[in-house]
Amino acid sequence: MIRLYTYFRSSAAYRVRIALNLKGIDFQAVPVHLVRNGGEHKSADYLALNPQGLVPALETDGQVLTQSLAILEYLDETHPDPALLPADPLGRARVRAIAQAIACDIHPINNLRVLQYLGGTLGLDQAAKDDWYRHWVETGLQAVEAMLAADRRTGVFCHGDQPGLADCCLVPQVFNARRFNCDLTALPTIMRIAERCEQIDAFNQAAPAQQPDFE
Amino acid sequence: MIRLYTYFRSSAAYRVRIALNLKGIDFQAVPVHLVRNGGEHKSADYLALNPQGLVPALETDGQVLTQSLAILEYLDETHPDPALLPADPLGRARVRAIAQAIACDIHPINNLRVLQYLGGTLGLDQAAKDDWYRHWVETGLQAVEAMLAADRRTGVFCHGDQPGLADCCLVPQVFNARRFNCDLTALPTIMRIAERCEQIDAFNQAAPAQQPDFE
Repeated sequence: MIRLYTYFRSSAAYRVRIALNLKGIDFQAVPVHLVRNGGEHKSADYLALNPQGLVPALETDGQVLTQSLAILEYLDETHPDPALLPADPLGRARVRAIAQAIACDIHPINNLRVLQYLGGTLGLDQAAKDDWYRHWVETGLQAVEAMLAADRRTGVFCHGDQPGLADCCLVPQVFNARRFNCDLTALPTIMRIAERCEQIDAFNQAAPAQQPDFE
Repeated sequence: MIRLYTYFRSSAAYRVRIALNLKGIDFQAVPVHLVRNGGEHKSADYLALNPQGLVPALETDGQVLTQSLAILEYLDETHPDPALLPADPLGRARVRAIAQAIACDIHPINNLRVLQYLGGTLGLDQAAKDDWYRHWVETGLQAVEAMLAADRRTGVFCHGDQPGLADCCLVPQVFNARRFNCDLTALPTIMRIAERCEQIDAFNQAAPAQQPDFE
């Protein structure tokens, strides 16, 4: 049985939940609460599984896999149907670049531990933290919008007419953007794609509100 | 001819330079100065190539590829020898996770634009910015050290005895860590691997000091 160490609100875990659902892979969700008890991801038990102390982690084939994008690629290599990446190298590079524009250049800058450093060590108030959050989401998503809007390979989804790796990253980031009241008006392509994804069960069932640890 | 839009000090561009060298791929370096003229990466011309306004970008086969990890995967798919990723899915997942622990969870938090926000919008002084930088490098590399030290798949390099994708990310991050006087004493595996890589021409010739735009 595949085990996913997850937290309902973690957008990196959300990506993996979508991919597992798209591929119809049965898995057991093991909630890791990032706030309660000082953060269960910082416990010795969890750090033994994942020394980074981040979610998600995926336990499968006797190994613990970490890093959401690495997990998505693993799932695509071991469960190729339906594919999360196109077949051609240029297309694959494009999909990965869109995914990484989110997973490298937006999300980690706004991750919980960074917000905690801003509020703790730097003493920023909530308004300054919210400004930080919105700045990186809006800057980052505007770049993703340009990547999508300018390229005729964009289809119903980020790349063509089947949901894939980039969509798995986009939808959780849009969820976060809405949660922090980011300005989404300049993102018509992103919002069209995200809303289309949200009509699909695999995406819906991966959403934070549908998780057993939702609160 | 492959064109790499690069900046000597960009560690994301440094990763791609290493990979191009390891694979013996001839390329033309096009310097994009991230500081001069208010940042050449923010020019309309460069944004038309890469809407994210980040380096590197790789122009090849009539396309512009962005995001260093996506470029590395593309190079590995189109120039498979020598391979940057192992053949087995679990090994590939491990190498990608190590690479992403650096490329997602260390580097973007310390990128130039983030440091500019800290100094500009938040008004942090140099000492506070240096503390920030060192915090994320040290926290991040300690996790990478644990990923490497605890796993018998670590060899002369991050994964086995041939340099690969993870090493392409590790060496530039160690370069940055040294530049900011980070504490490297708790990182024996990382430093052993980085020093071994630095004996290889492909890594050396990719170093900032060897670039035509070095200053």
